[in-house]
Amino acid sequence: MRAEVVAVGTELVLGQVVDTNSAWIGEQLAMSGIDCNFQTRVGDNIDRIASALRLALGRNEAVIVCGGLGPTQDDVTREAIASVMNVPLCRDATVLQIVRERFVPRGPTRTMPANNERQADVPEGATVIPQTMGTAPGLICPVGDKVMYALPGVPYEMQDMMRRAVLPDLERRSGQVAVIRSRTLRTWGLSESGLAELVAPRVEALEDGGPGVPTIAFLASGVEGIKLRLTVKAADRDSADKALDAEEAELRILVGDSVFGVDDETMEHVVGGLLLERGWTLGIAESLTGGLLAARVVGVPGASEWFRGAVVAYDAAVKQSVLGVPEGPVVTRDAAVAMAEGARRVLHADVGLATTGVAGPTEQEGRRVGTVVVGLALPGSVSEAVEFRLPGERERVRQLATISAFNLLRRRLSAADGEAQGP
Amino acid sequence: MRAEVVAVGTELVLGQVVDTNSAWIGEQLAMSGIDCNFQTRVGDNIDRIASALRLALGRNEAVIVCGGLGPTQDDVTREAIASVMNVPLCRDATVLQIVRERFVPRGPTRTMPANNERQADVPEGATVIPQTMGTAPGLICPVGDKVMYALPGVPYEMQDMMRRAVLPDLERRSGQVAVIRSRTLRTWGLSESGLAELVAPRVEALEDGGPGVPTIAFLASGVEGIKLRLTVKAADRDSADKALDAEEAELRILVGDSVFGVDDETMEHVVGGLLLERGWTLGIAESLTGGLLAARVVGVPGASEWFRGAVVAYDAAVKQSVLGVPEGPVVTRDAAVAMAEGARRVLHADVGLATTGVAGPTEQEGRRVGTVVVGLALPGSVSEAVEFRLPGERERVRQLATISAFNLLRRRLSAADGEAQGP
Repeated sequence: MRAEVVAVGTELVLGQVVDTNSAWIGEQLAMSGIDCNFQTRVGDNIDRIASALRLALGRNEAVIVCGGLGPTQDDVTREAIASVMNVPLCRDATVLQIVRERFVPRGPTRTMPANNERQADVPEGATVIPQTMGTAPGLICPVGDKVMYALPGVPYEMQDMMRRAVLPDLERRSGQVAVIRSRTLRTWGLSESGLAELVAPRVEALEDGGPGVPTIAFLASGVEGIKLRLTVKAADRDSADKALDAEEAELRILVGDSVFGVDDETMEHVVGGLLLERGWTLGIAESLTGGLLAARVVGVPGASEWFRGAVVAYDAAVKQSVLGVPEGPVVTRDAAVAMAEGARRVLHADVGLATTGVAGPTEQEGRRVGTVVVGLALPGSVSEAVEFRLPGERERVRQLATISAFNLLRRRLSAADGEAQGP
Repeated sequence: MRAEVVAVGTELVLGQVVDTNSAWIGEQLAMSGIDCNFQTRVGDNIDRIASALRLALGRNEAVIVCGGLGPTQDDVTREAIASVMNVPLCRDATVLQIVRERFVPRGPTRTMPANNERQADVPEGATVIPQTMGTAPGLICPVGDKVMYALPGVPYEMQDMMRRAVLPDLERRSGQVAVIRSRTLRTWGLSESGLAELVAPRVEALEDGGPGVPTIAFLASGVEGIKLRLTVKAADRDSADKALDAEEAELRILVGDSVFGVDDETMEHVVGGLLLERGWTLGIAESLTGGLLAARVVGVPGASEWFRGAVVAYDAAVKQSVLGVPEGPVVTRDAAVAMAEGARRVLHADVGLATTGVAGPTEQEGRRVGTVVVGLALPGSVSEAVEFRLPGERERVRQLATISAFNLLRRRLSAADGEAQGP
């Protein structure tokens, strides 16, 4: 089965917005074993959208069109689809009701603009994919034995409808008997070439592959480290998962505890789990990371069970007055330890984690840009500080410092039952 | 003149790599006054590439094909172009010489793989765009009175050839004397449809357009609000900018101070500028936003001149012990005011800004998910708190709360010289 993605929006062809939706959809199609040979972007113009849809329907069994379902006069995807289907648009009473209910006036006098009602227009013969978040519903539009799906351009709405309605419908239509499953091992602290050398024996062992044998891909993911993506095609989900389990075990032997998580597990999820196991709470003191650690922590579901809070001591005087750091230079191991202990004390936490350093653009206290010191105060241990030299400009140094701090805490908590390890 | 971008690469249609090249090329074409109505992505397959090129040549005067010029067996763009031109490929001696010279062996025994020589293959009748950085040259391939340009997929090589050879050639062919300029007005606090209604008079007034008359587009930018993009085509840069100035002034009358910035200006940049004007420093207290305000503030260049720090009081006890919030419920106006005043006092700042509220997933203190209270303590004013009802799930509520807090501070600082305004 072949599907084409048609992304609609003048902002896309003018390069004002990078079309990440098509890439995401292409990936999902590949995972479902559906071929995607072409992707098209077209501006907000009924005739050109219709011509792109006709072409795509001619060379594929399915077309996913994304964008142009909003309330403004620019949004003409509905009209283009109706023209390709050669049917009229009808205003759907159920959708209209939902559009109206979803419109939350932000002031006492605001009523719903009439334009919004256009979002309830549905081509005759199409099925609505109910919206759960935004206001525009998606559409499933049969054309003979082929099908067009219309999805909103807002990424999280599109992804939700794709998972909930489009992929299941495509899989049903394709009668696909093989499944493709994948698993991502997230690593931190190794270079891409270093990681490639470690796992080379497995890449060679799997080389001539075939059904049931996983493939390994490397995805450099910037400040999130490097991911190892295992993908396998098998007759059913169970045997696919068994093959992934076996390969994951082999890789973990080679890569060791540089693997910090699996699939969507972030460093802070892992840290939260380790803290919960011990019943410990966390307090944070941040200088150069300026709130990034705290912001990531509160993104972890249930963080309130183990996260007390943070002090962002951007100004040196705040380090002294709030955290009790002694006067003097602040990009030092002593200052990092004092910050970690200060966070633990002020925030009444069991564990104190602190960052200080030089994000740039210029050096500070004679220390080079990229110098970062992480302080850590754990129950029952002597407090410590570890110094890192991180590459890149200001924002990158900050992001890398954030993950480096979590990673230090992760390694110390993982090692807490055994022997202490180096960072 | 119309040009289409054809991006070649199986990794693009599989979503392993996001196609940023097409967006960049689209933007350059727009700036040169060349229409780009379609963009196509196609996998590494001679027949499908050739079919995409034929289609693109049929509906445009020029086609820019990007990628598939490398040395591996996958790289078949040259062959597809030769097939569309209906000419043979000839190995170009000059290019071959350069390819050989550019090949730097990485070990003592490495010689150039024979595959690399394929990069010297040129369709008969095509002109070479010499490579200055990588190893694959670009191509200018005339087809009757139309033209195809082939560029490498590596972004910096592509951009170099585009600037050096393609854009000048396209401009010469189009005889274009016009420039296209655009400007973005960033708004906050209005729905897309509400904004559309406000600016409808201008959209209508500009409708029949033409050279020198700007067009207006709406770009919903999620938690960053909605952007109004003005674009104008004019004889020269000066008259384009004058037309944009005039239209910006008209729109500001209609939209008022919901416009918070222009082009790349973020809300926190604007707030920083307003604080600097007054010589005031900022201290932040965050509950549900958990560090997001602070993390955005430290991203503003020069923030250390006006930002003192933040207290992330995620746990209620921290609000009391560090910020001096009285015991009792914390999602209230009183708590928000106490947090703002606490931040000002503890962080020795002139201005205190605080957030408290319910991010979800469940209600808290009987308050619904999405309830957010922003507290503000300004020099010489009575401290205040404003309550918001924000839509969406946990992460979205947090992001919206962050911008809402900055926006309240922006409005109060903007109004500080005049009369106080409602939020």
